[in-house]
Amino acid sequence: MVNVSVVGATGYTGEELVAILSGHKLVKIGSLSAIVDRPMDISDIIPRLKKKINLICAKLSIEEIIDTSDLVFLALPHTVSMLYVPQLLKAGKKVIDLSADYRLPADSFKRWYGVEHSDKGNIGKAVYGLPELNRNEVKNCALVANPGCYPTGVILGLAPLIRDGLIEYEGIIVDAKSGITGAGRKASIGLLFGEVADNFKAYKIGVHQHTPEILLQLEKIAANKIDVLFVPHVVPTRRGILSTIYVEPKSGVTQKKLDAAYFEAYGQEPFVRYRGSKDMPELKDVIYTNYCDLAATMSNGKIVIVTAIDNLTKGAAGQAVQNMNIMCGFDEAEGLF
Amino acid sequence: MVNVSVVGATGYTGEELVAILSGHKLVKIGSLSAIVDRPMDISDIIPRLKKKINLICAKLSIEEIIDTSDLVFLALPHTVSMLYVPQLLKAGKKVIDLSADYRLPADSFKRWYGVEHSDKGNIGKAVYGLPELNRNEVKNCALVANPGCYPTGVILGLAPLIRDGLIEYEGIIVDAKSGITGAGRKASIGLLFGEVADNFKAYKIGVHQHTPEILLQLEKIAANKIDVLFVPHVVPTRRGILSTIYVEPKSGVTQKKLDAAYFEAYGQEPFVRYRGSKDMPELKDVIYTNYCDLAATMSNGKIVIVTAIDNLTKGAAGQAVQNMNIMCGFDEAEGLF
Amino acid sequence: MVNVSVVGATGYTGEELVAILSGHKLVKIGSLSAIVDRPMDISDIIPRLKKKINLICAKLSIEEIIDTSDLVFLALPHTVSMLYVPQLLKAGKKVIDLSADYRLPADSFKRWYGVEHSDKGNIGKAVYGLPELNRNEVKNCALVANPGCYPTGVILGLAPLIRDGLIEYEGIIVDAKSGITGAGRKASIGLLFGEVADNFKAYKIGVHQHTPEILLQLEKIAANKIDVLFVPHVVPTRRGILSTIYVEPKSGVTQKKLDAAYFEAYGQEPFVRYRGSKDMPELKDVIYTNYCDLAATMSNGKIVIVTAIDNLTKGAAGQAVQNMNIMCGFDEAEGLF
Amino acid sequence: MVNVSVVGATGYTGEELVAILSGHKLVKIGSLSAIVDRPMDISDIIPRLKKKINLICAKLSIEEIIDTSDLVFLALPHTVSMLYVPQLLKAGKKVIDLSADYRLPADSFKRWYGVEHSDKGNIGKAVYGLPELNRNEVKNCALVANPGCYPTGVILGLAPLIRDGLIEYEGIIVDAKSGITGAGRKASIGLLFGEVADNFKAYKIGVHQHTPEILLQLEKIAANKIDVLFVPHVVPTRRGILSTIYVEPKSGVTQKKLDAAYFEAYGQEPFVRYRGSKDMPELKDVIYTNYCDLAATMSNGKIVIVTAIDNLTKGAAGQAVQNMNIMCGFDEAEGLF
Repeated sequence: MVNVSVVGATGYTGEELVAILSGHKLVKIGSLSAIVDRPMDISDIIPRLKKKINLICAKLSIEEIIDTSDLVFLALPHTVSMLYVPQLLKAGKKVIDLSADYRLPADSFKRWYGVEHSDKGNIGKAVYGLPELNRNEVKNCALVANPGCYPTGVILGLAPLIRDGLIEYEGIIVDAKSGITGAGRKASIGLLFGEVADNFKAYKIGVHQHTPEILLQLEKIAANKIDVLFVPHVVPTRRGILSTIYVEPKSGVTQKKLDAAYFEAYGQEPFVRYRGSKDMPELKDVIYTNYCDLAATMSNGKIVIVTAIDNLTKGAAGQAVQNMNIMCGFDEAEGLF
Repeated sequence: MVNVSVVGATGYTGEELVAILSGHKLVKIGSLSAIVDRPMDISDIIPRLKKKINLICAKLSIEEIIDTSDLVFLALPHTVSMLYVPQLLKAGKKVIDLSADYRLPADSFKRWYGVEHSDKGNIGKAVYGLPELNRNEVKNCALVANPGCYPTGVILGLAPLIRDGLIEYEGIIVDAKSGITGAGRKASIGLLFGEVADNFKAYKIGVHQHTPEILLQLEKIAANKIDVLFVPHVVPTRRGILSTIYVEPKSGVTQKKLDAAYFEAYGQEPFVRYRGSKDMPELKDVIYTNYCDLAATMSNGKIVIVTAIDNLTKGAAGQAVQNMNIMCGFDEAEGLF
Repeated sequence: MVNVSVVGATGYTGEELVAILSGHKLVKIGSLSAIVDRPMDISDIIPRLKKKINLICAKLSIEEIIDTSDLVFLALPHTVSMLYVPQLLKAGKKVIDLSADYRLPADSFKRWYGVEHSDKGNIGKAVYGLPELNRNEVKNCALVANPGCYPTGVILGLAPLIRDGLIEYEGIIVDAKSGITGAGRKASIGLLFGEVADNFKAYKIGVHQHTPEILLQLEKIAANKIDVLFVPHVVPTRRGILSTIYVEPKSGVTQKKLDAAYFEAYGQEPFVRYRGSKDMPELKDVIYTNYCDLAATMSNGKIVIVTAIDNLTKGAAGQAVQNMNIMCGFDEAEGLF
Repeated sequence: MVNVSVVGATGYTGEELVAILSGHKLVKIGSLSAIVDRPMDISDIIPRLKKKINLICAKLSIEEIIDTSDLVFLALPHTVSMLYVPQLLKAGKKVIDLSADYRLPADSFKRWYGVEHSDKGNIGKAVYGLPELNRNEVKNCALVANPGCYPTGVILGLAPLIRDGLIEYEGIIVDAKSGITGAGRKASIGLLFGEVADNFKAYKIGVHQHTPEILLQLEKIAANKIDVLFVPHVVPTRRGILSTIYVEPKSGVTQKKLDAAYFEAYGQEPFVRYRGSKDMPELKDVIYTNYCDLAATMSNGKIVIVTAIDNLTKGAAGQAVQNMNIMCGFDEAEGLF
């Protein structure tokens, strides 16, 4: 059993996290906090939790969190988590931060998020919480930087091919398509149903803030510079990210070698499913689950990789719980689906 | 030819209005205004208008409007139109107000919209712009109160049966379902794609502000008190309102008499299509058009009426242009579809 | 532990059933069958089941089912289940039939489904599997007639008020709105995305085959004839049914009495949540869950009841598993969410 | 004035075509045909046409078409148009074929569509009806091969850069996303709302039949072999195609040169709008219009081109009417929007 708190319980990610945790047999939720006018029953804010959880959601009180929790999930906007992490670590708590605050070196963070990092000292201690890459480090760390939604699918798609030296590092193109909850629950014209439904668009071409996160992890594996053009799009769905990735194979690479690389990497993984070259993943196969589905095929001299995840589960809350399970020594799939 | 201005050009209704007017062969748009940071080409705000219209949208200048227009469309939030109408009428302009400001008597307006009316004197001069009821009055008036979206479909569905004395005035139930653009383009959590997609809900049961508007028009026809329970719902679509209306027939009423009442009322109407008792209207038949489709059938001792419109065209901008056509002596369908 | 089989594993209901059962800790799936060209891994047909279940789906073999199962789920089209039920019961199996075959008396079945019933003898032995009404009967029966999707929400909404004598039996109107998976996975033009998206419509006004099922159950409670006008509509969502129900209160009925009736009926129910008079259920609160949410308010002299379920879970597969849990003596919520 | 017939009036493309033609002031529709059980009023098949057009849709009669028409639109499935074209041309009719039958040389047609072409002689006489490339040829021809939906947006996006020698011919990637009506109105499981909604997927990677059509037109301009990897995806919308195109600039190419190429190509075009490097087209800007919107930006050493059209208008029926306008000497935009 572990006592946990969720800070930022009322965003899309926070809501998903509370929903998963409320069904997890080895978790006791100690406290929930969010920006609320007054303390409210969480199920009055998120009615789908009625009869599942009976807990007050109030303004953040670090003291209460420290009193009631062994492990804290921070589902906060970027640049806010770093205000609380130092105190929580000092109090001996484990922290899983779902924001971007501990995913990048301080200088890169400043460049992409526009803010000087206020807790540089802890960045280096954070483990990038992609279990398929860093399971052992996650197991023993105090601070997890939970991956971004886009990077989760993209890194899982590319890592085995880089590790096995099957692809060129130049000219990688990631054409990613995400459901709208990836942008959070914010009162913004661009997120209205009237703007998103019946629509589809590209945005932040080559300048999305998830670009350096993808590069950092892939370059670690390659021990080399890598060149990725990342072009995100908005799909009119609530959940899910499908990324179509175009890469140049090294000479002599065959479908067989691709298949071998993925089977080797993910054959035993509980939440990654490699589907070969002919059975392309679709969003409907993964939404409302913690799976990442993958396929890779060769066409016109390129490798085309398709990866699909649910941005709220494997791309955020589900992966956070997967990390918690690892940190606590539970079955990695406990409470997940 | 008529010179017109549109005030409030950037909401969903304003956008639709500008789109229709830009294709209308007898209209010259004199000026466009809205709450904008700085004067901008309207097609930079609403890209679908590029190459169709080349006009600056700036902050409201009553003087400019008066200089450039014979007729003014006010696509403003409720309680704002009344600030401009007196001056425009005084300057001899014709006005079509798409807000609720001139649809109700002052006391009723105050009760339902929460604000003391500041232009009581002109309320009585406004004609309720439902051409199928008030074509002659529209023709000769200076101020049109353009109907609300829900009332348009509901009144068209009930008026012929009331006029012909076919139904009881007690116990009318209107179960209405609207696409989300009916709520306007506002940065509000409840209007997000993440909240509206995959969802459906009832709201403001019995207390929606369109209730008194429906009653006022129907009671005028009945010359009697009428009792309507109005229950609106939100459908996950951008456009369209379908209303299912349940009424008690007077004794002796048959399908034949229903058919006759509707054929009589709408047989010659350019934008109302009565489809009998077996061919039920669907939103897809009317969205992106100015039509109101209707059917009525008897079942279980009740009459069930189904009416469908597009809330942005027949329920707002299209009907406003229809009214303009009438006021200007144009073909009533000019520029509409 | 219980060994189960699912017949009809590849429809929307069958798929949901297999997904729920594959995560149920006290269930072993013995066999899966459906109309397939050749035996296939179920996860090649329904990719979201990959790594969750590893089982062949083949053509129906009653012998194999009898060999491998204690309990059989029939997720078959109406008029097909009755071909297999006699043999399964004779072999001592428990059966949960998700079709309509055992929900109505033979004559009523013939009238509404157009087919002479071929297993009249077992109709009387079937228990209508709405646990909130018939928990004890379900516990001890061999054959459950799992309720239809519309009836589940409607009956749960009306039963407490009828039982407590709070409403008139005349003039009940049910305006129901369903997501499209309620119509099954059939290659039919009317179910295409191109026809359903951006659309909304009423259908089968007063003649939907779920009408007699609703009446039968409510009249049992009332011990009286009841009059319901049932008008279903199609919402452009995959899942969920929201019903808005209009009834006449008996004189002297107050909101307090309504609240008391619902609290009494459902306060202890694991899967029904009464939300009072101000907090209206929305589809998003119940989809992907086994809950039925309810609210009731008085307006304009009527009681307006809003009920919401997911048609695939509480309206079909989830309720079937709830029934199985009861029949097997498991915790009623085991494997559900 | 021109007398026209539409063959295949009840598919999505046919419906759109009839809707556009019914509002076109210089067109008289002579006959409508489709696969129907018995002659029916077209507005009983497509209710949105009620009160707009009053015409019977019956089984194809070539004689009737020849009697009543100067120009014939064939909105037929691939491999069917070629059965009728010879006879229509022989009778002196102009033909606009919306199928793929006359877009490719006979050998390529056989390879991609799997059928031996039965009218090889007329393939060479057909003009590829992309007015922005072939306006003069369209003006004087008898047979137009109306472009495919994907090729329309892709070719318009690439043609100016090829013509001006700004890009490499190797390694072009087209990541295209289409609404579902592009697949036609067919009773197929894969097209159901239950399969397409909340979903997104890639399909026919590198093997889609529009690939040779794109290549043929681009290679004509380049007078050189071109290498395109075409990867289509399905978006959960009814209408619209957005293509994201990745190309290698020739050395020395700047944004300025890109802008110049597009302005030169499309500055005077009535239905193509180049929006520069910062203002990315979205589906909502073009659906329900005949426009193709384009933007191009340089990022990470690549040129990223985004093009958007409505697959049913500029991608099919609208472009067909644009071609008709040209062939008949009408204003090219007549009847379009």
